[in-house]
Amino acid sequence: MNVVHVLNGPNLNLLGIREPDIYGATTLAALEARLSATCRNRGVTLNFRQSNNEGDLVNWVQDAGLAGEPVILNAGAYTHTSIALHDAIKGARARVIEVHLSNVHARERFRRHSFIAPVAEGVILGFGALSYDLALEAILAGGTDSESLTK
Amino acid sequence: MNVVHVLNGPNLNLLGIREPDIYGATTLAALEARLSATCRNRGVTLNFRQSNNEGDLVNWVQDAGLAGEPVILNAGAYTHTSIALHDAIKGARARVIEVHLSNVHARERFRRHSFIAPVAEGVILGFGALSYDLALEAILAGGTDSESLTK
Amino acid sequence: MNVVHVLNGPNLNLLGIREPDIYGATTLAALEARLSATCRNRGVTLNFRQSNNEGDLVNWVQDAGLAGEPVILNAGAYTHTSIALHDAIKGARARVIEVHLSNVHARERFRRHSFIAPVAEGVILGFGALSYDLALEAILAGGTDSESLTK
Amino acid sequence: MNVVHVLNGPNLNLLGIREPDIYGATTLAALEARLSATCRNRGVTLNFRQSNNEGDLVNWVQDAGLAGEPVILNAGAYTHTSIALHDAIKGARARVIEVHLSNVHARERFRRHSFIAPVAEGVILGFGALSYDLALEAILAGGTDSESLTK
Amino acid sequence: MNVVHVLNGPNLNLLGIREPDIYGATTLAALEARLSATCRNRGVTLNFRQSNNEGDLVNWVQDAGLAGEPVILNAGAYTHTSIALHDAIKGARARVIEVHLSNVHARERFRRHSFIAPVAEGVILGFGALSYDLALEAILAGGTDSESLTK
Amino acid sequence: MNVVHVLNGPNLNLLGIREPDIYGATTLAALEARLSATCRNRGVTLNFRQSNNEGDLVNWVQDAGLAGEPVILNAGAYTHTSIALHDAIKGARARVIEVHLSNVHARERFRRHSFIAPVAEGVILGFGALSYDLALEAILAGGTDSESLTK
Amino acid sequence: MNVVHVLNGPNLNLLGIREPDIYGATTLAALEARLSATCRNRGVTLNFRQSNNEGDLVNWVQDAGLAGEPVILNAGAYTHTSIALHDAIKGARARVIEVHLSNVHARERFRRHSFIAPVAEGVILGFGALSYDLALEAILAGGTDSESLTK
Amino acid sequence: MNVVHVLNGPNLNLLGIREPDIYGATTLAALEARLSATCRNRGVTLNFRQSNNEGDLVNWVQDAGLAGEPVILNAGAYTHTSIALHDAIKGARARVIEVHLSNVHARERFRRHSFIAPVAEGVILGFGALSYDLALEAILAGGTDSESLTK
Amino acid sequence: MNVVHVLNGPNLNLLGIREPDIYGATTLAALEARLSATCRNRGVTLNFRQSNNEGDLVNWVQDAGLAGEPVILNAGAYTHTSIALHDAIKGARARVIEVHLSNVHARERFRRHSFIAPVAEGVILGFGALSYDLALEAILAGGTDSESLTK
Amino acid sequence: MNVVHVLNGPNLNLLGIREPDIYGATTLAALEARLSATCRNRGVTLNFRQSNNEGDLVNWVQDAGLAGEPVILNAGAYTHTSIALHDAIKGARARVIEVHLSNVHARERFRRHSFIAPVAEGVILGFGALSYDLALEAILAGGTDSESLTK
Amino acid sequence: MNVVHVLNGPNLNLLGIREPDIYGATTLAALEARLSATCRNRGVTLNFRQSNNEGDLVNWVQDAGLAGEPVILNAGAYTHTSIALHDAIKGARARVIEVHLSNVHARERFRRHSFIAPVAEGVILGFGALSYDLALEAILAGGTDSESLTK
Amino acid sequence: MNVVHVLNGPNLNLLGIREPDIYGATTLAALEARLSATCRNRGVTLNFRQSNNEGDLVNWVQDAGLAGEPVILNAGAYTHTSIALHDAIKGARARVIEVHLSNVHARERFRRHSFIAPVAEGVILGFGALSYDLALEAILAGGTDSESLTK
Repeated sequence: MNVVHVLNGPNLNLLGIREPDIYGATTLAALEARLSATCRNRGVTLNFRQSNNEGDLVNWVQDAGLAGEPVILNAGAYTHTSIALHDAIKGARARVIEVHLSNVHARERFRRHSFIAPVAEGVILGFGALSYDLALEAILAGGTDSESLTK
Repeated sequence: MNVVHVLNGPNLNLLGIREPDIYGATTLAALEARLSATCRNRGVTLNFRQSNNEGDLVNWVQDAGLAGEPVILNAGAYTHTSIALHDAIKGARARVIEVHLSNVHARERFRRHSFIAPVAEGVILGFGALSYDLALEAILAGGTDSESLTK
Repeated sequence: MNVVHVLNGPNLNLLGIREPDIYGATTLAALEARLSATCRNRGVTLNFRQSNNEGDLVNWVQDAGLAGEPVILNAGAYTHTSIALHDAIKGARARVIEVHLSNVHARERFRRHSFIAPVAEGVILGFGALSYDLALEAILAGGTDSESLTK
Repeated sequence: MNVVHVLNGPNLNLLGIREPDIYGATTLAALEARLSATCRNRGVTLNFRQSNNEGDLVNWVQDAGLAGEPVILNAGAYTHTSIALHDAIKGARARVIEVHLSNVHARERFRRHSFIAPVAEGVILGFGALSYDLALEAILAGGTDSESLTK
Repeated sequence: MNVVHVLNGPNLNLLGIREPDIYGATTLAALEARLSATCRNRGVTLNFRQSNNEGDLVNWVQDAGLAGEPVILNAGAYTHTSIALHDAIKGARARVIEVHLSNVHARERFRRHSFIAPVAEGVILGFGALSYDLALEAILAGGTDSESLTK
Repeated sequence: MNVVHVLNGPNLNLLGIREPDIYGATTLAALEARLSATCRNRGVTLNFRQSNNEGDLVNWVQDAGLAGEPVILNAGAYTHTSIALHDAIKGARARVIEVHLSNVHARERFRRHSFIAPVAEGVILGFGALSYDLALEAILAGGTDSESLTK
Repeated sequence: MNVVHVLNGPNLNLLGIREPDIYGATTLAALEARLSATCRNRGVTLNFRQSNNEGDLVNWVQDAGLAGEPVILNAGAYTHTSIALHDAIKGARARVIEVHLSNVHARERFRRHSFIAPVAEGVILGFGALSYDLALEAILAGGTDSESLTK
Repeated sequence: MNVVHVLNGPNLNLLGIREPDIYGATTLAALEARLSATCRNRGVTLNFRQSNNEGDLVNWVQDAGLAGEPVILNAGAYTHTSIALHDAIKGARARVIEVHLSNVHARERFRRHSFIAPVAEGVILGFGALSYDLALEAILAGGTDSESLTK
Repeated sequence: MNVVHVLNGPNLNLLGIREPDIYGATTLAALEARLSATCRNRGVTLNFRQSNNEGDLVNWVQDAGLAGEPVILNAGAYTHTSIALHDAIKGARARVIEVHLSNVHARERFRRHSFIAPVAEGVILGFGALSYDLALEAILAGGTDSESLTK
Repeated sequence: MNVVHVLNGPNLNLLGIREPDIYGATTLAALEARLSATCRNRGVTLNFRQSNNEGDLVNWVQDAGLAGEPVILNAGAYTHTSIALHDAIKGARARVIEVHLSNVHARERFRRHSFIAPVAEGVILGFGALSYDLALEAILAGGTDSESLTK
Repeated sequence: MNVVHVLNGPNLNLLGIREPDIYGATTLAALEARLSATCRNRGVTLNFRQSNNEGDLVNWVQDAGLAGEPVILNAGAYTHTSIALHDAIKGARARVIEVHLSNVHARERFRRHSFIAPVAEGVILGFGALSYDLALEAILAGGTDSESLTK
Repeated sequence: MNVVHVLNGPNLNLLGIREPDIYGATTLAALEARLSATCRNRGVTLNFRQSNNEGDLVNWVQDAGLAGEPVILNAGAYTHTSIALHDAIKGARARVIEVHLSNVHARERFRRHSFIAPVAEGVILGFGALSYDLALEAILAGGTDSESLTK
């Protein structure tokens, strides 16, 4: 594992600007900087991206999957509606961890169901930007042997 | 308020061509022309756009929200499925009005639920192209003080 | 079209008194006065009524329907429960527009379903008292030829 | 049994006027005249009434129940929503037969459930005005001994 | 119309024997005798049959439909489960009336839904054996012009 | 607090006459007499009313609410269907207690849901006429300071 | 009790041939032989039958019911869909025990509901062919006095 | 009746400490003291207990039931999930009254259903600690003849 | 593979006669003739059957399954209700293809679910009689090695 | 296998005392005595226990599972609500048979679902105390080789 | 008809690479080559495309619809979620056939519903890459007269 | 913060013994040892407990809440059923993090809903024993100021 992908879905480009009472005051750029530093210290490269487009996220998960590189995925609203992402993850030969900034289970009913979770390795949610750090920790703790994963 | 955004979702580019018995014979270009004239008369600029892509609509709603400019949104089919648009509107610092050409409540069951409505200021539907004119009237009646809006 | 009916359902007699944070501070009398002025200017007579009784609303919709005169209907709570009003509207030879002061889709779940909407011409909701003005505008824009309506 | 009550609910006053393709061309007055003639021939008095008001129907069912006189009830739209009528019938010491002009099971989904049926003696529906004649036949065939009824 | 078909479904062969508190003490043979007498008086032939087999009922409805002869159908338990009978009735060029001895709406929940009702002309239920007599009356009142039926 | 309103809904006029095994043998007049005596002893006036009409109950709750006088409400069948009453109570500046004679949770499924309960102060049910006495006790224990109520 | 009926529904004729991992390797003939031996030892006659036809099973249950002879019923797939069998059992004056070879609750969701169980005396499932032996034991333990059964 | 049991379920030991905005500031000890005083005045003994354990509540209801002594039961969260308590109450030869401090119908959806209510004599909820006083009043008003109770 | 079975369910005997607007004008005999010709050209024998009886279809699927011969199955209405057919197909050692003349997904809601599809190899629907030809093509393209099939 | 565990859940300590019309007159002690005798005759030890506490049942199932000793489990009300028991059984290296005294499928709707059944070997219900005898028979017929069990 | 469009949705670009046990080993390029050869032989041009983006698929269906050219559509995951595609197909003046490689009805529950099917001409699924060949056969069998199509 | 509570629910005492393919081979004792070491290094005390009893978990959460000490809670099966735990957490003045060893969203449907999650600070699941380490990291990263927490 030389690369870790952190992929962010719709509206996360407004992190720190939009609804700070729910999502916190950290901007996406600040988050990227912090995760990037951690990665550098651990000898891996961070590929940090965001898109409001479902298709982009599908493309990026596919790419990581083909390369066998782990993914930290905050699919935002697509978490709850995207079977396309479900399929992309299911077919990916790589670890995928679902993260959320907010505790989605404490919000509207339609945020309780995730199409990502059943095909992800695990889920970390509710810790604000720290959710990403913990996911990165999980990735780094896991070694590089993605072949041994079963889905 | 110097700009009003009229954002149109999937298949509305075929307005006047596709299923005129449901959506009427007015084309999208004709609608834009008419709304543009009204806007000119009232001293505001019209930004009129259409896309078949959910991500484009999210982008445009974000842009208007950051600029604090009001939005008339006919999200078409994405009305019923897009939590991404729901989130974009919820986080926008601007007025957003949901419009529909047809009376969606008189059609298939899956058109009855809107992810837009709970976070929009109001809904106008069923009047054909006139739905847009009425929404514009509501925008123009509202003044420029978007700060006083509560969601 | 010489007469426009504005029919108000249960608890709207307390408009401006009851829960102003939801319904605004305009009283029903003030609303009637304003709509009445608009009608006078446009050469039509306003018939403005309110009742807490489902049967009265059915009677009034029937009367308007037999006379072929358009109706702006805020059925209040009966919107969500009255099949009797649904049937009265469906059988009426007149235009019927559903209006609401508040954005019912942003409130309790049981306010999301309307028995009025599928048989109304259109719906306008969420603009406070302005919802009525917009509906009146839609009526007046529509001409007098109710024969050409299809339901 | 000297009196038979035929009680009609909302919108049935427009029978023969409203939507003749669903409800037929017979007016309520014509129906009353025909049933009245039958009753006269059989030596019973017909009490034929209509109201758009749920409370009136409850009152009338109560009155018939206290008098032990049979009821033919077309509760119209209240069939599907009125637990008040359900309770009035359940407490009535009299036979109650549910009738409908149209075949409600061939129409909208919300017309399939009846709060009347579980507490009525029987149901006759779909035969147009003939539904009433058949119900009257059932009443007349039944004798006057309402004491032996069990609910 | 020279023939009227009375078709009885599963367990009706035990009428008068099985659960008389629900279905009454009249046997199927006695019912046939009585209906036969009525038919004779009115100049039509009665074809009275019973089967516990869904396929038989489908066959018989098809036969009556091809001959254009009316059907009184008590499909018993198949009322609630047989789409095959639904289709047979829908395709039949003949009147079909659904009857039941008991008031199915006052019994278990699974007896409330009928696959027969939406494609039948009408429904008569809850009057014991009299339900059949009333249905026969409806048939005989209807004339022989089955061509004018619309489904 | 000088007045306590006891408002009774549909079919309660037949209390003691209708289905005494469910509702007990006390008549509504006897109940009024008893509560009236209690009120007299405690220095308050009893306003005791009954109607089979949903609209009347809405009117009476509105009146009590405007006067800031407490209400004991047995809405009968309208408990389960009336959003109009829900709204009237929600907007009332007065205490409202829901009562029932019978234990509605031990009866049909459709009696389990109450549109009154979520906006009432509390619920007392299942104690026969004693339910009213206990509610009156709760009212009298509460003082006259309705301003401090939060809903 | 001189006769015990063991009635088998659809696809059980392929027992031991079809899907042995679910249903075991015992054939239906072998099962009959074994149960027959047990019956002979206990002085009763075994009537062992199988059909893929719902109507046949209804007929056989009726026959046993009329004779007052106990039934061990593995209705196979009809367990989950046959109200006709439900009615036949409910009307039968005989003991009926539901058996299954496999543990239906550990399989597809649609196998969890049984129309047989609520009207059977008891249920035995999941023990392979032993389920039948246990049911026979229950029958033989029960004596011959079927009159004392209440359903 | 010499003893009245007041049984409190999970988290009620923190009454007055936990979430006073929902449950009020009275502690459980204070409540016990007050009810104890009332009981002493009326010549009965109070048995006041609390447990966070479902099994304890089942035990205590059984004990009271065997002794024929009335129970005031605030089962807390077990109200909504415990069929074991339902069964214990159903089998108890004693009066059981369900109480709640808060108005559970005004809170989360999962608090609306009670497994206690259908087998309790009655329900009192929403009056804070006064709910217990009213329930005690109901018990004391009821006499000692538990034999006449029917469930 | 020397034989291909084409099995037709209820009401398909009236193909070309019943509701030609839905099912087309081709009769079942004409369809058999056409498929028979194709089979002859390809060197296989066609076994073409129809029944209105669920049990017959189960028998025929079992027979084909035991012989290892492929089946084209239009189960008609039993598609939506027959778990017996589901089990027969699941246990069959042969290919089974589900076909329909009409597009069942464009019709009533109850036609959307198929008990056949999850255990069939594939589904072809909506092409009228051509659906059968395409299914035959799929069979013939598949070779004779049914042993390699996994279900 | 030297030990058979018979584990009884909530309220079964009142067997023979509580609701004998549903559960029969045999006490739990009598049942234990009878099963104990059978076990003695067959050379195995009976471990017969009861608790009203979900946790106790979980503990006991775990203990039996670790020892590889078979369990007859009547979990009473916990049958329908305990995922903890489900998990304990699923993880147990021992046979577990679910029994019930009454026919739970003939009672309230909430008794139809079992969290035990999908992970039990089989289910025996409805035969009163005989259900236990039959389960013991099934255990004893099964041999001691629990290693060969698959779940 | 000079052009046939074969449009492929999300994750189909990984065909033959991703999950070959579900989707087979044929790559998308190989499929295109094979279909292209068939088309060439039949004198039509193949337009074969793939995108992970819902909007692209909407655009392409619109283009084909405006040109009146037939479409073979495997919308992948969007099949189950895209009302936008539903609308695009509904408005298209061209034949659209839904295909799937796998038998979606034998997989997860959320793959059972298709928003494409009700507006497609027909559906072919479960035959692997052969599904496309069969669909092409259906297109080619259909002639070029798209005007005669009714939706 | 001097103490961190790690509370484990039903069946977790068998960790490493029961179903290692789902839960991994680490025993609970090993997990405690590892977390204990981490805590020692960070200067906090670990309170590590397990119970199969819902009431114990409620007690322990209450204790931690009163002390203002953070909790890592793996409630096992009670996660999905315990409103009592929900209430205990909601009332606790302390941070509570939900953890699971397995990815519960990839398992049975009934494991998808958590009564813990909406009142927890966050959720970490699917990483085996590492889930606990990550939760501990989140606790330790959070500082000691539990007063600033809002729920």
